[in-house]
Amino acid sequence: MPDRTKFILDEKSIPAQWYNIQADLPEPLPPPLHPATGNPVGPDDLAPLFPMELIKQEVSTERWIDVPGEILDVYKLWRPTTLFRAHNLEKALDTPARIFYKYEGTSPPGSHKPNTAVAQAYYNEKEGIKRITTETGAGQWGSALSFGGACFDVEIKVYMVAISYHQKPYRRIMMEAWGGKCVPSPSNETNAGRTMLEKDPDSPGSLGLAISEAVEEAVSREDTHYSLGSVLNHVLLHQTVIGQEAKEQMEMAGFYPDIIVGCVGGGSNAAGMYLPFLKDKIDGKKPDLRIINVEPASCPTLTRGPYTYDFGDVAGMTPLLKMFTLGHDFIPPPVHAGGLRYHGMAPIICHLHNLGLVEAVSVHQLETFEAGVLFAKTEGIISAPETNHAIRAGIDEALKCKKSGEAKTILIAHSGHGHVDMAAYQAYFEGKLHNYDYPEEKIKESLSHLPKVGD
Amino acid sequence: MPDRTKFILDEKSIPAQWYNIQADLPEPLPPPLHPATGNPVGPDDLAPLFPMELIKQEVSTERWIDVPGEILDVYKLWRPTTLFRAHNLEKALDTPARIFYKYEGTSPPGSHKPNTAVAQAYYNEKEGIKRITTETGAGQWGSALSFGGACFDVEIKVYMVAISYHQKPYRRIMMEAWGGKCVPSPSNETNAGRTMLEKDPDSPGSLGLAISEAVEEAVSREDTHYSLGSVLNHVLLHQTVIGQEAKEQMEMAGFYPDIIVGCVGGGSNAAGMYLPFLKDKIDGKKPDLRIINVEPASCPTLTRGPYTYDFGDVAGMTPLLKMFTLGHDFIPPPVHAGGLRYHGMAPIICHLHNLGLVEAVSVHQLETFEAGVLFAKTEGIISAPETNHAIRAGIDEALKCKKSGEAKTILIAHSGHGHVDMAAYQAYFEGKLHNYDYPEEKIKESLSHLPKVGD
Repeated sequence: MPDRTKFILDEKSIPAQWYNIQADLPEPLPPPLHPATGNPVGPDDLAPLFPMELIKQEVSTERWIDVPGEILDVYKLWRPTTLFRAHNLEKALDTPARIFYKYEGTSPPGSHKPNTAVAQAYYNEKEGIKRITTETGAGQWGSALSFGGACFDVEIKVYMVAISYHQKPYRRIMMEAWGGKCVPSPSNETNAGRTMLEKDPDSPGSLGLAISEAVEEAVSREDTHYSLGSVLNHVLLHQTVIGQEAKEQMEMAGFYPDIIVGCVGGGSNAAGMYLPFLKDKIDGKKPDLRIINVEPASCPTLTRGPYTYDFGDVAGMTPLLKMFTLGHDFIPPPVHAGGLRYHGMAPIICHLHNLGLVEAVSVHQLETFEAGVLFAKTEGIISAPETNHAIRAGIDEALKCKKSGEAKTILIAHSGHGHVDMAAYQAYFEGKLHNYDYPEEKIKESLSHLPKVGD
Repeated sequence: MPDRTKFILDEKSIPAQWYNIQADLPEPLPPPLHPATGNPVGPDDLAPLFPMELIKQEVSTERWIDVPGEILDVYKLWRPTTLFRAHNLEKALDTPARIFYKYEGTSPPGSHKPNTAVAQAYYNEKEGIKRITTETGAGQWGSALSFGGACFDVEIKVYMVAISYHQKPYRRIMMEAWGGKCVPSPSNETNAGRTMLEKDPDSPGSLGLAISEAVEEAVSREDTHYSLGSVLNHVLLHQTVIGQEAKEQMEMAGFYPDIIVGCVGGGSNAAGMYLPFLKDKIDGKKPDLRIINVEPASCPTLTRGPYTYDFGDVAGMTPLLKMFTLGHDFIPPPVHAGGLRYHGMAPIICHLHNLGLVEAVSVHQLETFEAGVLFAKTEGIISAPETNHAIRAGIDEALKCKKSGEAKTILIAHSGHGHVDMAAYQAYFEGKLHNYDYPEEKIKESLSHLPKVGD
């Protein structure tokens, strides 16, 4: 193993400000619209769901937003995270490329999610909110928010998609260990849940329905707000601690990335990594920097969807967001990377993609696990199925370098470990996983349900 | 959160030597004996199982043993590990005590085990060995050795206790992700396994039988050795990287521990932490340092067993080791801390305990989970059930400080995260766990089978 493997920062280097890309966009972000009126959504529309400080962050064009000391104190439990040079992976690939990865898996819940969960719990508590509801699919976000709630004594209520609640109990028990309350959705606790249970007592649930339940409970109780773990501007903002640290660490390593890759579902992890670097591209300092968003071939939002206004949720309860989308009622095939099964994408990423500032590729499930197993055998870390998408794309770029002989510098956003996802690896090893074809007919159908603005 | 939370070392601070307590023992360690002759076991007796370099380390009285560069390069993937000040836990306990913990859970398999697994794989590979067999209960050790094997291209074959193989698949799949081969024990691959399967085709297996199978395969193949994950002197030696780093980090923090606590099954994690500190006590520099080994009340080796020669395994295939023991055929109650369910204890720890240099306490299962949940809610980390024993004892000492008003410094050896052990937490939350009484009759019975030396 030549030269250094790890680039470690002292806790004094945890970023004291979040970086807000909205200050540096060449064109402003299209605003969210009210579905009934077609007018931009105002703070008052959002106040029943979010604390005012987060609503302000959502629309702020200030370049730097201070991280409160109380949040920094919690970040210290695992931040700064380590940047690694993937010497062993480079050797296995026999590539002249330099591969780096920044690893978010050492956080208490094992992923990047608490970077925003902690901040959201803090701002809610500060404005007197005692409870937060949210939804979760496989449980990454629900466990991270439960951890955040434990840090600031905020009660967390998680509506977990029923089929995952029963099939994947580990994440649910993590929520409980941090004091969160987790119920299967559909539940008997909301109108939306009861209506579904009357129709189908054995309903497996869906993320869309879980959102409906969480939002319904939040708007119906004075002491309760709602929280989202990706997509929104303030979520991406909080995640920029990743990229700011990575910039300092790449300087320690003596290289500036030619290519940054990150997996995208809602997009917060990838954007958190690349937005601070993207500023250099926008400023003209690094015009050749390539940024690649990696999505599942079975849910190819950026690579195949149109750029248009759509609902953020399946049930159509959110404001309309200008996004690349596969249609809000598109249900992606059951790939194991549950965190990437989202019909839309963070509006900031979509805007950047539309402006040609970032790229997107899609990769198939089997190829991502193949990449993940090679990564485990060379770099030691067993990665989350979502993260394997980023690793796949990083390896593909490194193999292109092998062909061309170029020594490019590739930076992979590594969003978390896979210790709670071993069932997915089991299915892979047993030959039970397969790739999914592009679901053309289903997407055509769901795109025919796109809302008309002001409808 | 007042002052610093984390004490981070650069990778240049990874110890370049292991510390060998055998150089500083006030009296030499009683040697292992051959069960048939009663004579001390020589290198030739061990050569079919272990590489000569490890056999040398087992009996060495050199104080410092160099860590080969190839092992240091792998250590860099996660070492040095972080030392934390548990400010939030202190606050929750309202104690004047200062609590620190050193966290080994950021290693690829999530525990301290790879510190020795990597070293053992390296020395075997260097002596031309292509395969290593081992046994594993819940799977921590089997997964760590599979990781070690992946680092040095050594094939790892793990005999996993059948009931765990079927009930706890996650660790097994981790082994496979690192290229290890895992079979349920009893298996059809050895005489020991076949004999058992003829008697009972549905045998759930036992750790003792898994050892027998692993040893049988190792002695029957020229290219194959055997590996043990705890108990032996060279294993404790490799783990001293923990304590050496901790000493440097406690200096950064400005405190020397008054009390060190660690959980003990075979004892390698606790000893790895405290042996480098213990040198100061033996040297007379820190005469008041207290070292507490924490064991399950249901498997109270140090607190209730006699100090005598016994087999290291259930089947009676190993040399006789001078240990505190509950009898080699004692089967501990099924507590969830599988890594602590061992009838004996590392001979070094037993010798130190016999000399009065270290203490031991036993704690009940429910109290350990209670401590683990408080730790998760305050410090964020969900700990392995084994680790919860150390946390329990650390909290108990901090509560004594609260009563006495003393501001003692307590250092907890935190051996790993519990992300793969959530089923144990589930059972705890659902009220399905209970405490086990001291199994007096069973231990009386197994102690009646102690071997007679030279028998």
